[in-house]
Amino acid sequence: MSQLAAERKLPIQAIHVPKTMDNDLPLTDTCPGFGSVAKYVAISIREAGFDLASMAKTSTKVFILEVMGRHAGWTAAAGGLAAEKAGDAPQVILFPEVVFDEAKFLAAVDASVKQYGSCSIVASEGLKLPSGEFLSEAGGKDAFGHAQLGGLAPLLAQIVSEKLNYKYHFAIADYLMRAARHIASRTDVEQAYAVGKAAVELALIGKSSVMATIERKSDSPYVWETGSAPLDKVANVEKKMPRDYITADGFHITDKCRRYLSPLIQGEDYPPYSNGLPRYVVLKNAAVPKKLRTTFELKK
Amino acid sequence: MSQLAAERKLPIQAIHVPKTMDNDLPLTDTCPGFGSVAKYVAISIREAGFDLASMAKTSTKVFILEVMGRHAGWTAAAGGLAAEKAGDAPQVILFPEVVFDEAKFLAAVDASVKQYGSCSIVASEGLKLPSGEFLSEAGGKDAFGHAQLGGLAPLLAQIVSEKLNYKYHFAIADYLMRAARHIASRTDVEQAYAVGKAAVELALIGKSSVMATIERKSDSPYVWETGSAPLDKVANVEKKMPRDYITADGFHITDKCRRYLSPLIQGEDYPPYSNGLPRYVVLKNAAVPKKLRTTFELKK
Repeated sequence: MSQLAAERKLPIQAIHVPKTMDNDLPLTDTCPGFGSVAKYVAISIREAGFDLASMAKTSTKVFILEVMGRHAGWTAAAGGLAAEKAGDAPQVILFPEVVFDEAKFLAAVDASVKQYGSCSIVASEGLKLPSGEFLSEAGGKDAFGHAQLGGLAPLLAQIVSEKLNYKYHFAIADYLMRAARHIASRTDVEQAYAVGKAAVELALIGKSSVMATIERKSDSPYVWETGSAPLDKVANVEKKMPRDYITADGFHITDKCRRYLSPLIQGEDYPPYSNGLPRYVVLKNAAVPKKLRTTFELKK
Repeated sequence: MSQLAAERKLPIQAIHVPKTMDNDLPLTDTCPGFGSVAKYVAISIREAGFDLASMAKTSTKVFILEVMGRHAGWTAAAGGLAAEKAGDAPQVILFPEVVFDEAKFLAAVDASVKQYGSCSIVASEGLKLPSGEFLSEAGGKDAFGHAQLGGLAPLLAQIVSEKLNYKYHFAIADYLMRAARHIASRTDVEQAYAVGKAAVELALIGKSSVMATIERKSDSPYVWETGSAPLDKVANVEKKMPRDYITADGFHITDKCRRYLSPLIQGEDYPPYSNGLPRYVVLKNAAVPKKLRTTFELKK
């Protein structure tokens, strides 16, 4: 946008706000939206893990929570925060950054069931085979010849059932995780407002082609401030999980990862409720008056 | 238990507490657990509905939330509380009590997309075909000859995609919905403690073969007290959604159903948090000293 505007000498400033629950943008400590997703995933797998453990002795032993995140494992990693001591759910995390190895996966699940009675798994939808193919798309066709539509979780469940013969359940969080304002992280909400404010301030001082950023000054206590980064260093770069954020076996997060993630889920920011339900603002989406002459046209 | 004990003249009192998130027990206004599940489902479909509506113009137009509930549609019905005015999500609810009619379903989805821009659906896993078969089990076999494992939501999504050509997403709540203590209904929590207390009191006055119940005295304000019911009137009875709780077209809840459901989700009962995560009690599960002589044996 800013390049096109400059080329045509149009008075447009392009300021970017790093909103994405994928948390995969460079040059910012985190992306608003992610902290709340992280909190939701950690809470959800903790809760489901307790549910599973309560009946694992006589019933379901394996639970799989599939989370969004096609190429970067940040949202799956966040589930790891729920595991504060050995045996806590989730016992296994599957990242898109770690190529899926069925034998090692089954060994990890079986070890958890044998040692702790059950196994709760957080699986990123972007899990890949050695071929680079998404596991969820490699599972064959159904009776009608369609690629399996069920996603990754049922596929993993099928592998667990066939090879280990454990009863399973699975959940697919999908939009629920990124829309869960009811359990938003207070830190995330503060950062969302802060980068919005920073973007307006960048515009007011005449900047363009920049992204408002969050800069971490310390982990504990978490100290951060807003900054800015040039957009050409941001576009088309995908920040994946560093290898040292993932344990050697590939199935959990390291302490270094915890130090990064933990501050982002701190604090609760409950919405107002009435009649038992959260009240959310609906934007009027009223356009501001047009400023540019309408005779400008973009030419290819 | 109480019949066996009486037969053998064992001093065992059997008092039942109506815990089930399915809400399908008779002779009690509701079952502890259900109010919180109801709140979770209503909040979740409201949140996902906003997410969907925000991008429906250019992307996904249909969202399906699959909820647990094999034979009774109470948890799916609860989603209906999120729809407070025309156009609010969910626009379509699928109950196990209403036989699935593909043509009518597609017409309802299409009408919602055309009128409101999108369609959010809450679907009970127990949805049935005219044959009585579960829709989720009738969908054919995959390439390996297994029954489709993906559940109902992907099947409905496939129908929507093929027949209406709308982009879809789906979530499967599974254990997340029944384990979501983080957004428990205060009313539900109060009732859970109340029936536990009532059960102990029934035991203390020498009762057996009874279930502690919740008796509704008025809808608005919601006034209730605990009571009791004979167990032989409870066992093997499944309380389904009455027909007049479901709209004539079969796709939503009536005002009568709202009057029943709404009180059950009132109030929030947030758990304590530390380090960004809820702290849940882990029971010690220490057995009380054995009172009965060990020489008793149950004989077939």
